[in-house]
Amino acid sequence: MRHFLTFEDFSKDEILEILALASKIKQEAKAKEYKPYLKNQTLAMIFEKSSTRTRVSFETGMYQLGGQALFLSSRDIQLGRGEPIKDTARVISSMVDMAMLRVYKQSDLVEFAKFSSVPVINGLSDDLHPVQLMADYMTMQECGSGDVVAYVGDGNNMANSWISMASILGFEIRIATPKGNETNPQITQKALQNAKKSGAKIILTNDPKEAVSGADVVTTDTWISMGQESEKEQKIKQFSGFCVDKDMMSLAKKDAIFLHCLPAYRGYEVSEEVFEKHAKEIFLEAENRLHAQKGVMVWLDSKRNG
Amino acid sequence: MRHFLTFEDFSKDEILEILALASKIKQEAKAKEYKPYLKNQTLAMIFEKSSTRTRVSFETGMYQLGGQALFLSSRDIQLGRGEPIKDTARVISSMVDMAMLRVYKQSDLVEFAKFSSVPVINGLSDDLHPVQLMADYMTMQECGSGDVVAYVGDGNNMANSWISMASILGFEIRIATPKGNETNPQITQKALQNAKKSGAKIILTNDPKEAVSGADVVTTDTWISMGQESEKEQKIKQFSGFCVDKDMMSLAKKDAIFLHCLPAYRGYEVSEEVFEKHAKEIFLEAENRLHAQKGVMVWLDSKRNG
Amino acid sequence: MRHFLTFEDFSKDEILEILALASKIKQEAKAKEYKPYLKNQTLAMIFEKSSTRTRVSFETGMYQLGGQALFLSSRDIQLGRGEPIKDTARVISSMVDMAMLRVYKQSDLVEFAKFSSVPVINGLSDDLHPVQLMADYMTMQECGSGDVVAYVGDGNNMANSWISMASILGFEIRIATPKGNETNPQITQKALQNAKKSGAKIILTNDPKEAVSGADVVTTDTWISMGQESEKEQKIKQFSGFCVDKDMMSLAKKDAIFLHCLPAYRGYEVSEEVFEKHAKEIFLEAENRLHAQKGVMVWLDSKRNG
Repeated sequence: MRHFLTFEDFSKDEILEILALASKIKQEAKAKEYKPYLKNQTLAMIFEKSSTRTRVSFETGMYQLGGQALFLSSRDIQLGRGEPIKDTARVISSMVDMAMLRVYKQSDLVEFAKFSSVPVINGLSDDLHPVQLMADYMTMQECGSGDVVAYVGDGNNMANSWISMASILGFEIRIATPKGNETNPQITQKALQNAKKSGAKIILTNDPKEAVSGADVVTTDTWISMGQESEKEQKIKQFSGFCVDKDMMSLAKKDAIFLHCLPAYRGYEVSEEVFEKHAKEIFLEAENRLHAQKGVMVWLDSKRNG
Repeated sequence: MRHFLTFEDFSKDEILEILALASKIKQEAKAKEYKPYLKNQTLAMIFEKSSTRTRVSFETGMYQLGGQALFLSSRDIQLGRGEPIKDTARVISSMVDMAMLRVYKQSDLVEFAKFSSVPVINGLSDDLHPVQLMADYMTMQECGSGDVVAYVGDGNNMANSWISMASILGFEIRIATPKGNETNPQITQKALQNAKKSGAKIILTNDPKEAVSGADVVTTDTWISMGQESEKEQKIKQFSGFCVDKDMMSLAKKDAIFLHCLPAYRGYEVSEEVFEKHAKEIFLEAENRLHAQKGVMVWLDSKRNG
Repeated sequence: MRHFLTFEDFSKDEILEILALASKIKQEAKAKEYKPYLKNQTLAMIFEKSSTRTRVSFETGMYQLGGQALFLSSRDIQLGRGEPIKDTARVISSMVDMAMLRVYKQSDLVEFAKFSSVPVINGLSDDLHPVQLMADYMTMQECGSGDVVAYVGDGNNMANSWISMASILGFEIRIATPKGNETNPQITQKALQNAKKSGAKIILTNDPKEAVSGADVVTTDTWISMGQESEKEQKIKQFSGFCVDKDMMSLAKKDAIFLHCLPAYRGYEVSEEVFEKHAKEIFLEAENRLHAQKGVMVWLDSKRNG
């Protein structure tokens, strides 16, 4: 049995296999052909933090695969409070067929997976957001863009995930963060190691212009993650010069695409002009959460007895 | 593609067509014949205010039509906070097949619909409650009642909706509100204009007895809408004489029916005696939310490529 | 039409019939044969208190039976506040096919059932937890254990339910509670009466060792029920000597099983050692909530026109 917690657990071939599966299922869905890949199955969705996109994409996706999703918010279930995670994992996994968790601590995911009798998916943690990256890469494939990616902004779970994915797939990722907002050291270290095998090029810089110059893909994320609103003023100062505006985009390749995992704060990490010019790619990326995650779920189901 | 935001967007024939469709689907359901009109479709339900009836009727209805409904409360999604409505609309509509919103501001509905790639339904706004009116009119049809309607009470979204529906369908509506609690001026103005075409008779008065005299249908709504509990004491004084009790009902036609969209506050807008005497109609009206909304959803689906 | 509110409403044969039905449906599910016993049906789940296990088991169970479950939390619906229970019952039961309520007051359940046009299930009340007991007895049957049961701990809804079930099925139940924490007097009185007919042996004691000696099944429950955290310190003193640890278990039969309805607080009502030694039974018991409740729902559906 396999889980989907971090790219580090996967080979390049496996990631590409999941993406191909996702594309196939997307094409079927676009033709209104909903095959019951996960017929009669139930996905438990456990949210420590609320998230519209994650919720809607997993719940709709599971339904379109012939199953159902069960939404447990932090008001319905509190991981590790009242009951050890190992008990919650044993109980819930005895009743459902798959579990998706959106948690604060990556270690809670790992603990849950350890005691779960069904596959577990990382729906987002403070460290990593791999299902978003699957949607992002799928969007790059569909747009026919090259794979020199510039991430400009906060060294958060999105930045960590880009490094991690690049290190397995072997593409070039440039991360430009303000000083003091760098990516997670452990994840970065591990990615740099893996990059040696895969041929990935990982560039870490504090200069956004260096990162964006000649890039095929420019991407960013909010500076103020949910629950961190108090640090807002300070962050805005630190991130001066990191807004992806028209001038910054002009440094990238002429036909570069712009991605954003949303929600987007205009005037902060991206200008309204750049956002709306690239709305087609951004909302394709959002929609691809649905399709990419279907690929992940169907793939995990196929490895159930593996 | 069509939306269901206000009666003003519809012709009389269209409203009657939806009602006929709803009746047909109701009869099928009563015969336990659940045809998958909306097979594989997902309805996103977005609630800024919670509502049991709206929730249960849409969720059950969508399921009985072969689809599923996805419940997003104000705890899961905050329209216009954090993210502009246009982004939320673009993301959600890229993943689901239809959206129903229960909002405060009618203008938020309009904004959402503008950017949505799927049909949008008004599940209730501060201004209008058209799906409730569809259930009410369906109940009048089933009870074989005449269509001289007296609304006694607050000039709220229910009163606005009665005026609006009457102005399109061409029936007689009498609205009796205490001074200072009149219906929305814009909606009223528009309805009075439309009434010229449809032949509707719209009577606005501050005298409940005048409104009820000889009416086929008497209806009311709570004086204290959810979230307005602080104004309770003042409202009770203003609404003195507006309680639909036995004496008031005696002014209506002998076989007049009484409708209430619920929840009902006995001793305020209606007496316990009148309520329980007319419980059959009232709970038929509640059940008809389920059926009327199925009609709306199936009709909207049929106009998807229109 | 029948409801499932308390064992007192059932004969021994009926309880055994439901358990047999549950086992049959469990075997089918284990063979991935999901028969649509409740095709197109909707279960309304109303929670005054949140509960992961109850939620997941009913929602997944209903889905596996071919229907859907609709989750209404205390944030979505407030029984008896704003609207009388009789109205809520009439509205909701007009739209759905079955209702499950987790409430504080057993009398609210009774009131709801009185006005409901569909079968009503007690998902847990302050007084009784009969669906949990169905899962517990099913687990005893599957483990092939004898039916001398020792309950050690708080005289709460679990203790009440054990007495009540034993009094109908006719087995031996020993309840050991600290002084001042005895079972509900009315339920106990009624059970003692019923025991005369069924041949049940009901032993009430303040000595846990007396209760456990030679028992086939040892069980307990948390001392601090949800919402009662303030009394924690006092309870811990009162319950000194009531922890089911290795020494206490050694008094039971050699192959005695240990059950716990969860969540479990190690070091309080049970030791970590005893818990993990008996984890297999405990999590089988948790899983059996899913199966036992399917039995209850399918049985109630079969009595709809009875």
